[in-house]
Amino acid sequence: MSQDNKPLVVETEFPVRYAETDAMGVVHHANYLVYFEVGRCQLMRDMGSDYAHIEGDGYQLPVTELKVRFVGSLCFGDRVKIRTWMEENRSRRLTFAYEVIHPETEAILVSGFTSHVWTDKKGNVTRVPEFWSSLFNKIT
Amino acid sequence: MSQDNKPLVVETEFPVRYAETDAMGVVHHANYLVYFEVGRCQLMRDMGSDYAHIEGDGYQLPVTELKVRFVGSLCFGDRVKIRTWMEENRSRRLTFAYEVIHPETEAILVSGFTSHVWTDKKGNVTRVPEFWSSLFNKIT
Amino acid sequence: MSQDNKPLVVETEFPVRYAETDAMGVVHHANYLVYFEVGRCQLMRDMGSDYAHIEGDGYQLPVTELKVRFVGSLCFGDRVKIRTWMEENRSRRLTFAYEVIHPETEAILVSGFTSHVWTDKKGNVTRVPEFWSSLFNKIT
Amino acid sequence: MSQDNKPLVVETEFPVRYAETDAMGVVHHANYLVYFEVGRCQLMRDMGSDYAHIEGDGYQLPVTELKVRFVGSLCFGDRVKIRTWMEENRSRRLTFAYEVIHPETEAILVSGFTSHVWTDKKGNVTRVPEFWSSLFNKIT
Repeated sequence: MSQDNKPLVVETEFPVRYAETDAMGVVHHANYLVYFEVGRCQLMRDMGSDYAHIEGDGYQLPVTELKVRFVGSLCFGDRVKIRTWMEENRSRRLTFAYEVIHPETEAILVSGFTSHVWTDKKGNVTRVPEFWSSLFNKIT
Repeated sequence: MSQDNKPLVVETEFPVRYAETDAMGVVHHANYLVYFEVGRCQLMRDMGSDYAHIEGDGYQLPVTELKVRFVGSLCFGDRVKIRTWMEENRSRRLTFAYEVIHPETEAILVSGFTSHVWTDKKGNVTRVPEFWSSLFNKIT
Repeated sequence: MSQDNKPLVVETEFPVRYAETDAMGVVHHANYLVYFEVGRCQLMRDMGSDYAHIEGDGYQLPVTELKVRFVGSLCFGDRVKIRTWMEENRSRRLTFAYEVIHPETEAILVSGFTSHVWTDKKGNVTRVPEFWSSLFNKIT
Repeated sequence: MSQDNKPLVVETEFPVRYAETDAMGVVHHANYLVYFEVGRCQLMRDMGSDYAHIEGDGYQLPVTELKVRFVGSLCFGDRVKIRTWMEENRSRRLTFAYEVIHPETEAILVSGFTSHVWTDKKGNVTRVPEFWSSLFNKIT
């Protein structure tokens, strides 16, 4: 746990892509999971690491559960602004939480979490490697 | 509610697309929401209707909440087999449930639900039109 | 070359997915490449094989070049109807051609081709394995 | 035409998303069209405008033709670095060209172009509005 007991919150910002919109004129709901992934990867890079390194070391973090709540929406022309933090860091499981916020009012548009298990390359559940456990403890 | 108190369960089957896989060699988790959508649209067509008609009538059904649990995974070469049913049919809200099952063992690989609200074209929440309410009552 | 000098043309049909549309209300242009892929994989299955087997044998067929012409478009509610055939079958290179046609009028909406090279798992260009060469010769 | 007869070349850079990779372990070929779109939209914003404004004015720029050549590939962990410029600015048609380059060696990995027509909201081909014609002339 970090000294002040508050997790590191990373904010990532980028423009909505036209390909991400649908015929309702807004971002298709499935794409928020991709935005969550962008936030999650940025959080890892900001910690001085990278999910590519985790896979390079022979580990994977497949998603086991996810939940999303939609209150508002984003259109092409808007910027995606997403806050990501690590909510849980256990020996075999990680949980990340996310908020997509309105780029100006900062109202929460979409929120959710994704839970992941540590597996080896064959998909067998394993314990978090010591290196990653320590690193993640600093930001949870 | 349908006479026998059991909702209509529709099964849809189609091959995994290569574009849906990711570097882990399995279907990327966000694509299961697209599979859910395929199942949901098939359910509506099997009822003798179509989501395109709902939009043609000036209504929309944006997703307000969703949850997914992942137990197994699918690879390229596998077939997606998905069961869909309507779990809740209220005046302003609909909930659909889904199970992606192993095409041979029928074990549940992925399950979840999506909740939707009825809105007009401007996105204002509205009551379900009478026509759709009756139609959906028959299968819930 | 097949006896009558005409390549096997396979027709695949499936509904447009809502997630494939964009804010213009039509299928986003990048998704036609995914439709081409669906047609290409169906052609291989109809030949009694599967692209999954090619990868299982340690080979890959990455795309090296592609071209697409758009004359019309598809909306949600439409069905995708795609014709696929193999245009070229060389020792190191394959070319597939595609036509997405209007499900009723059969007018060509989108047409194009994709060229592929045979590589091993490391991505080194290689010659087509004898088994696949013979199989593909029958349909080109 | 710009004074020095050279078009404005805009460089955009961002990380590969995991969802964009496929089972070959590299970015799926269809996603380069989305990268091209990101580059094209950035070029418009760098000119002091936005494709969202074009649609806001009642015009659209659907793709009519595209071509892509693939020499190399990108993996998760890599950064996408894309150069975009306007190659042609006619009364009814626009063409953009793109190069995705290796983030370190600057070798060209993927190159291509997309051609677009000016249409109104109903999809009827129209002439470029004077405002956009002048703006685009400065960078072609």
